Amino acid sequence: MHTRKVPLSTDVDVSVLARSTPGFTGADLENLVNEAALLAARNDKENVNMVDLELAKDKVMMGAERRSMLISDEEKRNTAYHEAGHALVAKLLPGADPVHKVTIIPRGMALGLTQQLPVDEKHTYAKEYLLNNLVILFGGRVAEELVLEHITTGAGNDIEKATDLVRRMVCEWGMSEKLGPMTFGKKEEEIFLGRDFTQKADYSKTTAIEIDAEIRRIIQESYQRAKELLTTNLRLLHKVAEELLENEVLDGSEIDVIVRAFNLNGGDPLTSSSTAAIA
Amino acid sequence: MHTRKVPLSTDVDVSVLARSTPGFTGADLENLVNEAALLAARNDKENVNMVDLELAKDKVMMGAERRSMLISDEEKRNTAYHEAGHALVAKLLPGADPVHKVTIIPRGMALGLTQQLPVDEKHTYAKEYLLNNLVILFGGRVAEELVLEHITTGAGNDIEKATDLVRRMVCEWGMSEKLGPMTFGKKEEEIFLGRDFTQKADYSKTTAIEIDAEIRRIIQESYQRAKELLTTNLRLLHKVAEELLENEVLDGSEIDVIVRAFNLNGGDPLTSSSTAAIA
Amino acid sequence: MHTRKVPLSTDVDVSVLARSTPGFTGADLENLVNEAALLAARNDKENVNMVDLELAKDKVMMGAERRSMLISDEEKRNTAYHEAGHALVAKLLPGADPVHKVTIIPRGMALGLTQQLPVDEKHTYAKEYLLNNLVILFGGRVAEELVLEHITTGAGNDIEKATDLVRRMVCEWGMSEKLGPMTFGKKEEEIFLGRDFTQKADYSKTTAIEIDAEIRRIIQESYQRAKELLTTNLRLLHKVAEELLENEVLDGSEIDVIVRAFNLNGGDPLTSSSTAAIA
Amino acid sequence: MHTRKVPLSTDVDVSVLARSTPGFTGADLENLVNEAALLAARNDKENVNMVDLELAKDKVMMGAERRSMLISDEEKRNTAYHEAGHALVAKLLPGADPVHKVTIIPRGMALGLTQQLPVDEKHTYAKEYLLNNLVILFGGRVAEELVLEHITTGAGNDIEKATDLVRRMVCEWGMSEKLGPMTFGKKEEEIFLGRDFTQKADYSKTTAIEIDAEIRRIIQESYQRAKELLTTNLRLLHKVAEELLENEVLDGSEIDVIVRAFNLNGGDPLTSSSTAAIA
Amino acid sequence: MHTRKVPLSTDVDVSVLARSTPGFTGADLENLVNEAALLAARNDKENVNMVDLELAKDKVMMGAERRSMLISDEEKRNTAYHEAGHALVAKLLPGADPVHKVTIIPRGMALGLTQQLPVDEKHTYAKEYLLNNLVILFGGRVAEELVLEHITTGAGNDIEKATDLVRRMVCEWGMSEKLGPMTFGKKEEEIFLGRDFTQKADYSKTTAIEIDAEIRRIIQESYQRAKELLTTNLRLLHKVAEELLENEVLDGSEIDVIVRAFNLNGGDPLTSSSTAAIA
Amino acid sequence: MHTRKVPLSTDVDVSVLARSTPGFTGADLENLVNEAALLAARNDKENVNMVDLELAKDKVMMGAERRSMLISDEEKRNTAYHEAGHALVAKLLPGADPVHKVTIIPRGMALGLTQQLPVDEKHTYAKEYLLNNLVILFGGRVAEELVLEHITTGAGNDIEKATDLVRRMVCEWGMSEKLGPMTFGKKEEEIFLGRDFTQKADYSKTTAIEIDAEIRRIIQESYQRAKELLTTNLRLLHKVAEELLENEVLDGSEIDVIVRAFNLNGGDPLTSSSTAAIA
Repeated sequence: MHTRKVPLSTDVDVSVLARSTPGFTGADLENLVNEAALLAARNDKENVNMVDLELAKDKVMMGAERRSMLISDEEKRNTAYHEAGHALVAKLLPGADPVHKVTIIPRGMALGLTQQLPVDEKHTYAKEYLLNNLVILFGGRVAEELVLEHITTGAGNDIEKATDLVRRMVCEWGMSEKLGPMTFGKKEEEIFLGRDFTQKADYSKTTAIEIDAEIRRIIQESYQRAKELLTTNLRLLHKVAEELLENEVLDGSEIDVIVRAFNLNGGDPLTSSSTAAIA
Repeated sequence: MHTRKVPLSTDVDVSVLARSTPGFTGADLENLVNEAALLAARNDKENVNMVDLELAKDKVMMGAERRSMLISDEEKRNTAYHEAGHALVAKLLPGADPVHKVTIIPRGMALGLTQQLPVDEKHTYAKEYLLNNLVILFGGRVAEELVLEHITTGAGNDIEKATDLVRRMVCEWGMSEKLGPMTFGKKEEEIFLGRDFTQKADYSKTTAIEIDAEIRRIIQESYQRAKELLTTNLRLLHKVAEELLENEVLDGSEIDVIVRAFNLNGGDPLTSSSTAAIA
Repeated sequence: MHTRKVPLSTDVDVSVLARSTPGFTGADLENLVNEAALLAARNDKENVNMVDLELAKDKVMMGAERRSMLISDEEKRNTAYHEAGHALVAKLLPGADPVHKVTIIPRGMALGLTQQLPVDEKHTYAKEYLLNNLVILFGGRVAEELVLEHITTGAGNDIEKATDLVRRMVCEWGMSEKLGPMTFGKKEEEIFLGRDFTQKADYSKTTAIEIDAEIRRIIQESYQRAKELLTTNLRLLHKVAEELLENEVLDGSEIDVIVRAFNLNGGDPLTSSSTAAIA
Repeated sequence: MHTRKVPLSTDVDVSVLARSTPGFTGADLENLVNEAALLAARNDKENVNMVDLELAKDKVMMGAERRSMLISDEEKRNTAYHEAGHALVAKLLPGADPVHKVTIIPRGMALGLTQQLPVDEKHTYAKEYLLNNLVILFGGRVAEELVLEHITTGAGNDIEKATDLVRRMVCEWGMSEKLGPMTFGKKEEEIFLGRDFTQKADYSKTTAIEIDAEIRRIIQESYQRAKELLTTNLRLLHKVAEELLENEVLDGSEIDVIVRAFNLNGGDPLTSSSTAAIA
Repeated sequence: MHTRKVPLSTDVDVSVLARSTPGFTGADLENLVNEAALLAARNDKENVNMVDLELAKDKVMMGAERRSMLISDEEKRNTAYHEAGHALVAKLLPGADPVHKVTIIPRGMALGLTQQLPVDEKHTYAKEYLLNNLVILFGGRVAEELVLEHITTGAGNDIEKATDLVRRMVCEWGMSEKLGPMTFGKKEEEIFLGRDFTQKADYSKTTAIEIDAEIRRIIQESYQRAKELLTTNLRLLHKVAEELLENEVLDGSEIDVIVRAFNLNGGDPLTSSSTAAIA
Repeated sequence: MHTRKVPLSTDVDVSVLARSTPGFTGADLENLVNEAALLAARNDKENVNMVDLELAKDKVMMGAERRSMLISDEEKRNTAYHEAGHALVAKLLPGADPVHKVTIIPRGMALGLTQQLPVDEKHTYAKEYLLNNLVILFGGRVAEELVLEHITTGAGNDIEKATDLVRRMVCEWGMSEKLGPMTFGKKEEEIFLGRDFTQKADYSKTTAIEIDAEIRRIIQESYQRAKELLTTNLRLLHKVAEELLENEVLDGSEIDVIVRAFNLNGGDPLTSSSTAAIA
């Protein structure tokens, strides 16, 4: 453990910290604790406590907060619904990684962020897990479309990630029944100047059309699933977005409270969570 | 605020200056104030007043004026109608950024310029806002086509911008219902030597045909909207172009005066401003 | 004005010189006057007169004469008809830039040259002006085809220029009604190693076919216009070519004299000058 | 022999070592023996015995073990069935290289490994031998599909290898009756910057479609053969996977024992081993 | 004239030399005379005479003779008919450049050569002149096909030249009526790394098919013309080839003598010389 | 002659050596004799005799022998039939270059080799000679297919050579009647970085399909000819392969003896040697 040189408060549970940072190497953890010590020093604390560590983790994993950034009320509301869409879909889909935190405080280039943390570190991904991820990625745009009177460029990054993911499912991991267990083109990491060109010689125009159709089908069915899920839970979506506008940050347990409270009040969020065999 | 070292006239309202320069960093503002101080010094003034700051802002944002450039009367008239077309469309479309200034004094490589300034700084753009921008971009060529006996190469730059914008709406931001929420090709900023080639392997010939059809449809419908708007307001277009020929520069409020005066005289400019759901 | 240090003859009208060199910068003009002073010195003159300046201008704008080049009589006759074709079409088309000079003395890589000079400097070009330029470019080949028993490789450069011009009209300036106000591919000046490739990903095969058809239609209609114009004025074409063979150089006013004299003698050159709306 | 300088235990049979390392050069063998000596020294042994050499061979041929890697029980079970699938198919197909070892201890980037060792070193490969290899490569994914409720990204590498192998059979070795004894494109090893491009000019779009169809047919028939083989021997697959979960490593003779024991108990594993003429 | 420093024999007619070396610069001529002086010196002559100059000219224009090269009788006969084919077609086609020399002594990489010299230096080429050149280029292969029992790789260079020439006629000089007066792709000389790629974006697949058809039509009609011409004059072809086999070199006047003698003896070589309007 | 400095045995016939090394330069011959002298020295001989020269020639022309390479009996038998197939086809086809030597001792990267030596050095190749070469190239794979129960990757190199040869016949030497006397794409030797790309712009998709069909037709007809020839002479193929397995090397005269002996015993090998006009 890399926490010895910094005086840690007695409330710090190192095992919780390690579990919530999957994929972190020893050096990453050391960096995180140093960041927390800095924060503690800046506030004249004598010990690094769990709050410092949590703040440091967010900064390392999501980029620094940019509270000074000027955001219009309209954009803030748009962001709140967008992130609420992501978070709620993630919450409602069984098997999805738990939501760790949602925020509408700008970080790095993003106006808001929804962060999930897996229970166990994964080395391989099941097809249904990936399909769920697609539905979560589309949760933001769908929320904009359902609630607000416009769609925005804010979903550009989600759309790009979703397209890349579907392409890999079909072309790299053999997860389309129609195209079968074979690869099409070279893997991303093999692409560098020159080698890149071979991608084109790899399959025919006819196969390219089939790949396109398959990618588009999976995209559209995933978007549709997100739409059904959020339409069924529209009142809950409003509730999460409103809480987010008020508090700016919600962690996983706070969202749990909202969902549970909503259920007690008569809502039934879990009706549409079937993970249909899309691809 | 970066205005302390330069003696500012008492009529200077710094907050107005900051609001009319969205996207400016502190360094940009400092540069602007220095430019204004230079202008004031050149005219032996003791203080930098609002006029100096406005001139400096125009120079920084639109390039230096080139009053010595020889322009034939025909070209000047062509430019006046072209810019009046942009400005009037921007004025008439609800939701478009306000017109800040129109000029037919050459600046940089341009014979004339229409400048809009947003009320709030934007970080994301709604689909309808982008569609309005397309109509504004086509206002110049449409004015030439409607009033003058020819169309010219002067609209080349507007046409290029419009094409790029529509391509991004369809291929990057998932704003075409027909093609759905996915990306096609790589984003502009990822294009550099070598990587560029992957764009081709990204989608099939059939998809390329669909993308082309969708881009062309949005282009043509936007051009049509600009045509309807200016046809309906043809007398007002003549009025704005004539004022521009006479004064060479009009700011937003002066255009407002023209439009209002025209309305009092019986015109009805706002009939065709519906923002039809094009894409 | 950059003419002070060189003793100019009293017959020199500097404003005429400046008007006949559109696009020249101050440095270009200075270079021209120095060239003229050199010529005057070589002929032991004390002043630079208008003739020296005219010779210097031709050298700077069209390349040095190559009187020693061996040209067969057949090639000389071919060149005379080719240049007469260009010049006569330019003369007959209303709105075309005036013909400044035609020559069949080889200059640079060319066996002959027809030079037009615009009345005013242009910064934008109207569609009909460009269509006229196409007809003028085809005047050379058409004259060969009509009068001589063969067509030659001598029109290769005109054909290349015409093709490039039509492509820009269609792909860059939105001047084809069929393809609409949008760009296809990147602009010439943006093409450098690497970026060049994006041109291909820009539009589909189907659009490429439409672009081809549109370019070919405009090419063929322009060629047809040149053919009609020169067929109607065939006797005048012979007259201009013969004068050119005899004098080797004709300036604009000399061609005017030929055309006028021809008219007095019963010809009617201006029947086919309609600028049909081709594109 | 490169084993003289290191004191070898008397139980070491050098000929067995050499036979089980086909393709090894003298330097490779020397390296292997040094690795074994290191292991022996680390355990304070005076001699290098056969166990040390076997461990060293595994490390050199399969990468270092990564016992510290955290793997969830679900992933471990997935890996066990995946590797059992490979191993069992290899065991059941007559003519396939004998299974040397199967492991679910992570090595290098892999969560598990199945290693086959040929009886004789091969310099050429018969078509049926290659077809068998395809069936073995698909054994992993098929086992996941048959037994577990999902397919995963873990088969990505097998799928890539299978696709490359089929492509070479069809395009390089003339092993498709339909496409005949000719090459299509350039061989892998000739591909470097620049030369790579020729691959595209090599055959027409129509031929590309035929190549695609042929590759996909062979892929699908091989996958089908793996499916039939493992479906027929499903109980044996469970047995091997369970043993693997319990022991983490099985060598060839241990698998033999499992299969034989299973046969004695009434199973009949060899029914579907026909090497149908696929390609 | 660059011949002063070397003592020239009195029989040397410098004007004849200059006329038979079209395209030679002064430096080229000087080089040629030095080469002749070297030859004269090697043979202990005191003066450079016309024979030395002729030998030097051949060396400079056609490469050095390679008399030591081992050629089988079969190949020598093949070469004789091939060159006789070129020479006879050139002789029989009115308007073709006169045949200067035919040789079956190997020079450079070639087993034989036919050299034509134009009467006047040409700067442009008429379409019919180019069509004649195509027929001459095919004369070699056609002679092989008609007389010998096989065609050989020896015509590879002629075929390449013919293909390049037709491509330029169609794509660069606008000499196909069907495709019209426009360019397709970039000119050869503009092709360098990078720019080369634009060639592909230049025209559509449909246009490419039309260009191919047009090029092939002209190729085939030219080949057919060569075949008709040599079939009609088959006995004369045998005569020229036999003389060539016997003498190894024939100059233009010697071929004239053969043709004339043949005519006196009843042949009628000029029946098929119509220059049909192919393209 | 480059053999003077090394003491040559009196049985050495230099003219035979020179004739059996076509294409060798003086330096090549010198190198060969030095190699032989080295061999003689290694065996403590005082003179270089014909055997030394023959061994040296094989080493220079076919690579060094690799007798230590471990080859399984199955692979050895496969190689024997493969090489016997090449050699027998070469022997039976009239007009093919004589077989010089066949070996199944590995040399360089090859498990076996069949070497032909032309009677005369060739500078051009007749179409039928090239067609024969194709049949010989396919002799190896055909022998495997006819006699053994499998085809192997061992024919990969033959298949590549055959494909390249047919492509050049069709695309470079105008030897397809269907596609005519023109070139398609650039010649191999002109291909370097950058220029390579032009190959693609050279012909249309439609032409590419025709080229593919023509190449495949010639490939398949040549393969069929090899199959007919070896099927008719199957017993002779067995005889040659058996002798090769026994002796490892056979020279041309030894194969002659086998064929003659076989004929005396009632075989009739020459029935299928018609060189059908394939292409």
